Amino acid sequence: MGNKNSEIFDYVRGFTCDFDSVTGVSKTAVPTSRKLSQMKGMFADDAAYAAALEKEDTVVYDFYEMGAPESEGEIAMGTSILHPGKIGDEYYFTKGHYHSKLDTAEAYYCMSGEGFMLIENPEGDWRAIPMKGGEAVYVPKRYAHRTVNTGKTDLVTFFAFGGEAGHDYGTIETKGYRKLIVERDGKPEIIDNPKWK
Amino acid sequence: MGNKNSEIFDYVRGFTCDFDSVTGVSKTAVPTSRKLSQMKGMFADDAAYAAALEKEDTVVYDFYEMGAPESEGEIAMGTSILHPGKIGDEYYFTKGHYHSKLDTAEAYYCMSGEGFMLIENPEGDWRAIPMKGGEAVYVPKRYAHRTVNTGKTDLVTFFAFGGEAGHDYGTIETKGYRKLIVERDGKPEIIDNPKWK
Repeated sequence: MGNKNSEIFDYVRGFTCDFDSVTGVSKTAVPTSRKLSQMKGMFADDAAYAAALEKEDTVVYDFYEMGAPESEGEIAMGTSILHPGKIGDEYYFTKGHYHSKLDTAEAYYCMSGEGFMLIENPEGDWRAIPMKGGEAVYVPKRYAHRTVNTGKTDLVTFFAFGGEAGHDYGTIETKGYRKLIVERDGKPEIIDNPKWK
Repeated sequence: MGNKNSEIFDYVRGFTCDFDSVTGVSKTAVPTSRKLSQMKGMFADDAAYAAALEKEDTVVYDFYEMGAPESEGEIAMGTSILHPGKIGDEYYFTKGHYHSKLDTAEAYYCMSGEGFMLIENPEGDWRAIPMKGGEAVYVPKRYAHRTVNTGKTDLVTFFAFGGEAGHDYGTIETKGYRKLIVERDGKPEIIDNPKWK
């Protein structure tokens, strides 16, 4: 990936890296932050987004891109820390992506928090899989995946996927997700995304 | 894999499975146990092994073989729970294995306990990577891997590897590992394995 972590960690002879088992934070690896300004157009309520951004360019989530070689037989791993919050009535989410090599799965272990793994495939099948701390989540081949934080604390996951999988963020950035998760009467509700193309 | 878990979990549309974040135990998945009697000849001290076995055929470790399809692009995941104990002065370990497809890596997250990830490759390079709860461990391609519990509690890991990797237990069962980890003056020490072929 050419990021700093690829220089820190030894993919030839193995390594360990600390990740706090509740917060997901590492003292060794270098995190990447996704701020509100980097998610333009992705939330349903554009006015609420503009107002939130004007107030503060908040960090929506942090994750550790560990610099694994992007080749077959490799395993990329790290943690993702999605903060709690809403834009309008829509819960914070990660941008989400397909794998460039579509036929590749991903394993997650949810370390803390609660929310959903929202998945959809190019054929239109979708699911919002409820997840919480202490649960492994399996994302099948061919499904775009995004985590949505419906709780009051960080939604923290450890993830692992094949090095050859790659990331296709563009499809989601262009088309959006078919479904949104919003708060209605204090509870998460899944609705159609009015912006979906 | 044809085990019960392959019927429980949906590898086509995704699933979650509970794994306690400290003990690694699942209320949903079916575990596999490795007893002392299934590890004949693997510990260095045959007399101590025979005496321990006569006393009780103890479970050395449990793990969750989750029934992931053994094909490219898949990810197999689960937890492994290695109990504390010794045969003579040698700490309990998992049998350990190469991947059948040698050029495949594996990701671990250590949920609790302390010990080592003992790795070696066919060319004779080896390392004993210290690991403890709250650390991710990366096992590189081409390395056999075994966990060794040098602590007083279970050594618990969440693991993920490519579905196409497969397991080659035979090589280790036949040749053994180049190195052992034993207790000397109350501390772990790495020594040559006198049985290594």
